[in-house]
Amino acid sequence: MKNYLKATAWEVIEDGFFPEHNRITESLCSLGNGRMGQRGNFEEHYSGDTFSGNYIAGIYYPDKTRVGWWKNGYPEYFAKVLNAVNWIGIDVFIGNRQLDLNKMEILEFKRVLNMQEGVLTREFKAKFTDGPIVSVKVKRFCSMVDDECGAISYEIQSINFEGSICAFPTIDFDVVNEDSNYDEKFWKEVAKDTFGTTGWVHAATKKLDYQVCSGMKVSASLNGKDLNLDVLPSSERDKNVELMVETQVSPGDTFTIYKFAANVASINYDKSELSDRCLDRLEAISAKGFDRMLTEQKAAWAHKWERNDIIIEGDILAQQGIRFNIFQLNQTYTGADKRLNIGPKGFTGEKYGGSTYWDTEAYCIPFYLSTSPEQVSRNLLIYRHNQLGKAIENAEKLGFTAGAALYPMVTMNGEECHNEWEITFEEIHRNGAIAYAIYDYVRYTGDNLYLAEYGLDVLIGIARFWSQRIHFSGDKEKYVMLGVTGPNEYENNVNNNWYTNYIACWCLSYTMEAINQVLKTNPERWAEIADQNRFDMGETERWQSIVDNMYYPRDKVRSVYLQQDGFLDKELVPVASLDERHLPLNQKWSWDRILRSCYIKQADVLQGLYFFEDRFDKDEIRRNFDFYEPLTVHESSLSPCVHAILASGLGYEDKAYEMYLRTARLDLDDYNNDTDDGCHITSMAGTWMAVVKGFGGQRVYDDVLHFAPFIPKAWTKYSFKLSFRGAVLEISVDHENVKIEHLEGFNIECKLYEKQHSLKEGAVITHSKK
Amino acid sequence: MKNYLKATAWEVIEDGFFPEHNRITESLCSLGNGRMGQRGNFEEHYSGDTFSGNYIAGIYYPDKTRVGWWKNGYPEYFAKVLNAVNWIGIDVFIGNRQLDLNKMEILEFKRVLNMQEGVLTREFKAKFTDGPIVSVKVKRFCSMVDDECGAISYEIQSINFEGSICAFPTIDFDVVNEDSNYDEKFWKEVAKDTFGTTGWVHAATKKLDYQVCSGMKVSASLNGKDLNLDVLPSSERDKNVELMVETQVSPGDTFTIYKFAANVASINYDKSELSDRCLDRLEAISAKGFDRMLTEQKAAWAHKWERNDIIIEGDILAQQGIRFNIFQLNQTYTGADKRLNIGPKGFTGEKYGGSTYWDTEAYCIPFYLSTSPEQVSRNLLIYRHNQLGKAIENAEKLGFTAGAALYPMVTMNGEECHNEWEITFEEIHRNGAIAYAIYDYVRYTGDNLYLAEYGLDVLIGIARFWSQRIHFSGDKEKYVMLGVTGPNEYENNVNNNWYTNYIACWCLSYTMEAINQVLKTNPERWAEIADQNRFDMGETERWQSIVDNMYYPRDKVRSVYLQQDGFLDKELVPVASLDERHLPLNQKWSWDRILRSCYIKQADVLQGLYFFEDRFDKDEIRRNFDFYEPLTVHESSLSPCVHAILASGLGYEDKAYEMYLRTARLDLDDYNNDTDDGCHITSMAGTWMAVVKGFGGQRVYDDVLHFAPFIPKAWTKYSFKLSFRGAVLEISVDHENVKIEHLEGFNIECKLYEKQHSLKEGAVITHSKK
Repeated sequence: MKNYLKATAWEVIEDGFFPEHNRITESLCSLGNGRMGQRGNFEEHYSGDTFSGNYIAGIYYPDKTRVGWWKNGYPEYFAKVLNAVNWIGIDVFIGNRQLDLNKMEILEFKRVLNMQEGVLTREFKAKFTDGPIVSVKVKRFCSMVDDECGAISYEIQSINFEGSICAFPTIDFDVVNEDSNYDEKFWKEVAKDTFGTTGWVHAATKKLDYQVCSGMKVSASLNGKDLNLDVLPSSERDKNVELMVETQVSPGDTFTIYKFAANVASINYDKSELSDRCLDRLEAISAKGFDRMLTEQKAAWAHKWERNDIIIEGDILAQQGIRFNIFQLNQTYTGADKRLNIGPKGFTGEKYGGSTYWDTEAYCIPFYLSTSPEQVSRNLLIYRHNQLGKAIENAEKLGFTAGAALYPMVTMNGEECHNEWEITFEEIHRNGAIAYAIYDYVRYTGDNLYLAEYGLDVLIGIARFWSQRIHFSGDKEKYVMLGVTGPNEYENNVNNNWYTNYIACWCLSYTMEAINQVLKTNPERWAEIADQNRFDMGETERWQSIVDNMYYPRDKVRSVYLQQDGFLDKELVPVASLDERHLPLNQKWSWDRILRSCYIKQADVLQGLYFFEDRFDKDEIRRNFDFYEPLTVHESSLSPCVHAILASGLGYEDKAYEMYLRTARLDLDDYNNDTDDGCHITSMAGTWMAVVKGFGGQRVYDDVLHFAPFIPKAWTKYSFKLSFRGAVLEISVDHENVKIEHLEGFNIECKLYEKQHSLKEGAVITHSKK
Repeated sequence: MKNYLKATAWEVIEDGFFPEHNRITESLCSLGNGRMGQRGNFEEHYSGDTFSGNYIAGIYYPDKTRVGWWKNGYPEYFAKVLNAVNWIGIDVFIGNRQLDLNKMEILEFKRVLNMQEGVLTREFKAKFTDGPIVSVKVKRFCSMVDDECGAISYEIQSINFEGSICAFPTIDFDVVNEDSNYDEKFWKEVAKDTFGTTGWVHAATKKLDYQVCSGMKVSASLNGKDLNLDVLPSSERDKNVELMVETQVSPGDTFTIYKFAANVASINYDKSELSDRCLDRLEAISAKGFDRMLTEQKAAWAHKWERNDIIIEGDILAQQGIRFNIFQLNQTYTGADKRLNIGPKGFTGEKYGGSTYWDTEAYCIPFYLSTSPEQVSRNLLIYRHNQLGKAIENAEKLGFTAGAALYPMVTMNGEECHNEWEITFEEIHRNGAIAYAIYDYVRYTGDNLYLAEYGLDVLIGIARFWSQRIHFSGDKEKYVMLGVTGPNEYENNVNNNWYTNYIACWCLSYTMEAINQVLKTNPERWAEIADQNRFDMGETERWQSIVDNMYYPRDKVRSVYLQQDGFLDKELVPVASLDERHLPLNQKWSWDRILRSCYIKQADVLQGLYFFEDRFDKDEIRRNFDFYEPLTVHESSLSPCVHAILASGLGYEDKAYEMYLRTARLDLDDYNNDTDDGCHITSMAGTWMAVVKGFGGQRVYDDVLHFAPFIPKAWTKYSFKLSFRGAVLEISVDHENVKIEHLEGFNIECKLYEKQHSLKEGAVITHSKK
């Protein structure tokens, strides 16, 4: 837990420079617009500790896999989020002194992330050892409107000196990945040029030949008056262009440099036209100018907040926390591009390599369903649809046949990018989440056509996988599934993980339902799908047999499901009884000790009960929650939200709030001591769920939107909006009342505390708790 | 399977050069003397494919651990067998032409490993592209008598040219490990010198500061007449000395260079005196001269064979195979130094890094017990005794307390050197093998004093480990052991591995027995041990409770032990029913598929039944053998020998012979396609066991040596010798008779087919099978 930052409802503020936490602040101050993003690094040179990161969505690098002992089936490469062009650089010299906060006396410093506007500002006053003092004000943003572009205004004021200020705006592809295995650099130069106030570099990745052209156009003013610039190209470095902008100043004078930057990538354009497209963008945005771009940026964010915001009253830290989560999710993924997805670190760091985990389906989809147009979630589903071929290849690599599909644990382009056998090969429940997301999407949106159009192919591939992965145990006289790792990664290679067995059978049932539905509603399309997938209806006989005869481990005495075979052989000692010095287990215990203990990293049986809540009665859920929650250490950021939702449903309000607190400020407070690597983007959607599905009790059953809110004791009021089938609702909860307002759009059906209402635009229902 | 080599009873012959198999031949032609060893590389420059390796026992390098995903508890470094000084090099020039078989026309070539004498010879005739033809004869050995020394005679005959032959004998520490993570070199120079016909280099390892001084002294003759040498130092390379020896020849002339080399190491001498000791050795051996050294070498090997040989008649390949195994074992470990042990590759390659695995205790000890003086096996046990402190530290690292000891999976100096969690942390049955070896040694030798002197400390540490590792399952109402990997590494992280549960309880029982024995026979020593180990006799209460109430998985229907919990859930399809294209599984199947299959890499339940054969009746062993053998793929070289021994005991003679064949020529025929990395040294002891314990039925129970031989159909006769409690016996078996002859030494008791005999020197018993 670190508390060096200040909070306001809309800002993350570093007041005074904390170089020892610079990497953390850089992570938190990351900017992005779904198309590109970057960490909150400085523009000018900084010789202190910094973790430089700029990322372009969809551009990755297949680095050589590093492994101690090779296992058959491992992927040959490990795809990495690629540190791309550093386009923010503006090196500054006062006379011959280089501006470098690591070597100057810092008189004032403030770095502010304004989440309302999507702008990062930095203001400081610093003194060179020989006397000159400068005051600097920087504003930077990644444009939500011009999503290949960013802009910087960099003001330098002389406090006490007379002489020259020389600035060197750069575009630099000579960057490293910190996680590069052999300190290799991944970019090579294709071409570059400078002319007038413009410079660009066109570079390509050493493997896969991704190409990016990144350019800048600069302008400047002195005391607010535009300068006619005498710009000189000055770089002799490979993969780098640099311009030189100089002026003479007296004390009090302010020299402002505007840097407009554009990054265009070969995933969107012909390689041959990249530099032209880059120059187009530069012309367009520099013609707009910094102020108009900024105005548009604020408007774009205001529009997002209009639909996304959660307002919490009476608790400023909670308010800031939830907004930070919503802000980062919106920066990471906008849904504009079907090829993109949500990396666990978004544009805030390199860690975890690949961009897509089951996090997207299990945690992020519900957020985007409620806060964004349908198309956004639909695109996330289509992403997997488009990778079905790769998932089938992946399954073939592991010995499966006949169109069985195993989606990868971690991926960039559909190929597996992870290489720990117990996860890569065994954490196959991810396949279930991908099917579940289709169900979840259809349930929420009512978009039944999705199945025929895209969903059914994916479901059939997944069902075939389960059918082959499960076998009949002569000993148990039931179907079983051996050698899996469930969502709780503190168990490896277990037999009959309840969650995996359950979701596998659910997938088989749902696929059969989906087939029947498409068969009835669109027999022609069904014929097409069956043909393309060489599907024989006879396949479902085995599926049904598995569904009817699956084995589920269960403790008859306690009447709870068992996480896996043999779970009761463990010593069942609640986490609360552990000496605190043993926590967190993942830092204090050796791996084997964790594995044979009863402690649960993240919801597993409870994850299943959350997904399929409507198939279990409340007492059953309560028994399982009461059994597993005391054994859960929540050492995954994805765990507490599920417990918060279940606890809310069970009326365990204090427990629900406790769980919520564990994720809400995870990064802002550096709770797990790892925010320096980047922010936990996907778990932020979980935090949103803890409020909306947990405290708000939001569900959709049978085309009806349900709410059953409570309010945590510490808050005075909270409210959120959500979109549902063309309607926008606002839900406000305080200690007296719950109010639901239909703000705009179609009529919908809604239940509040089990009482059903038909809502049309303008309708308000209020429920008094007294 | 490769068949390019020729066999005689005593030789491995490469007749004609096979450059595509050069790495294999180099492995097979490795020489060693327990103190140092080397691969069968060429002396002269060779620009073709070669894997250069010279090793000095006890000298290793702690290289940085390479791992994809770090797990808590992993060791920080990975100890590597270190490629040490290349002392064999003799570069040769004819005029200005460099002798290099890769660039010449080879007219004749023969490389012969003479196992009877411990000498490697190489003869070739080759032609330079411009005409000159040379005939070369090389003899090389690592001296068994002067065990820090080696000698080479290198004869070069001019077939058709007139002119100069110039030879450059070198000592070179500028060598690489092929498995170095970052192409780093591990040696640095301390000092070097050349004078007259002598040169030496003193070098140190970059970490741990091991130091070695390696020197050479050369002499030469022309047509058998000693030359007065004009020797010039010529090297300017770091870590290298080179001498230049030149002569003029005419067609028919033979120029012979003798190179005497010594390698002395800081593990045996003060670092300050290394060069002096090296020069002492060089003086001593060069004074002896090559011929006398060679005579002594032959005598030393004759002496070894006198005790070690197994003679097989009627099957030349079997004869060569068994001798190759015995030869390599004798080259690897002589028992002269308590600090040394038996690496899986001996001095034949780098692979597997560390020098000590449980192979030593489970497979090698029986070989040395029967073929070497008692002290040899005793030293292998003391090696572990001396590492007890490190084993306790290792256990502490994993959360164990109070003197519990976990011996490492792989080690050089007692610290763990392996980093796969499922092995490092979970393959803990190795602790059992270390205790078993003590029992095995005492049983064979009758050296009861060993327990009080060294054994009991180790047993107590091991017993304490098991006592903490096992816990009581409230559900089963039995003690259980969760999260282990048994000897069958095709299962990971299983619960209640029968073998591990069994040997753990056996350890507890044996430790209690051993305590009682020392307490009775030497109460003062016991008081000392108890005090040093802070041992309270109350500790044994829990031990006894575990022994009395341990859970063992069992199939009541088939009446067999189950390898682990849940084994019967697998699909039990015999290996014989698998499509052959799926074999070997470790190359054809992904790891998860192997794990969830029923296939067994190496004896597991059967390993336990072999160890503790006398505790089970034959029907029980038969039922388990009949159940597990069809499921075993023997993809570990350590597996078939155990099956061969059990099959022999059960009268399954054909199966026993089939199992024997799988190891006997493993390296000579490159059966697993990996001999290029080096030979499988430790499994060679298993091959020996298959003959002596398997076909010969040798056992020791209650101080009596047992035999119950049969002879494989393909052989006409076989015989072996063994030492037992001061007596040397020879056992000969043909299709008519079994003969046991007491060759020399003390009277002993011996049972042949359950009939007991008291044997004294000269006694012969014959059993007719008719």
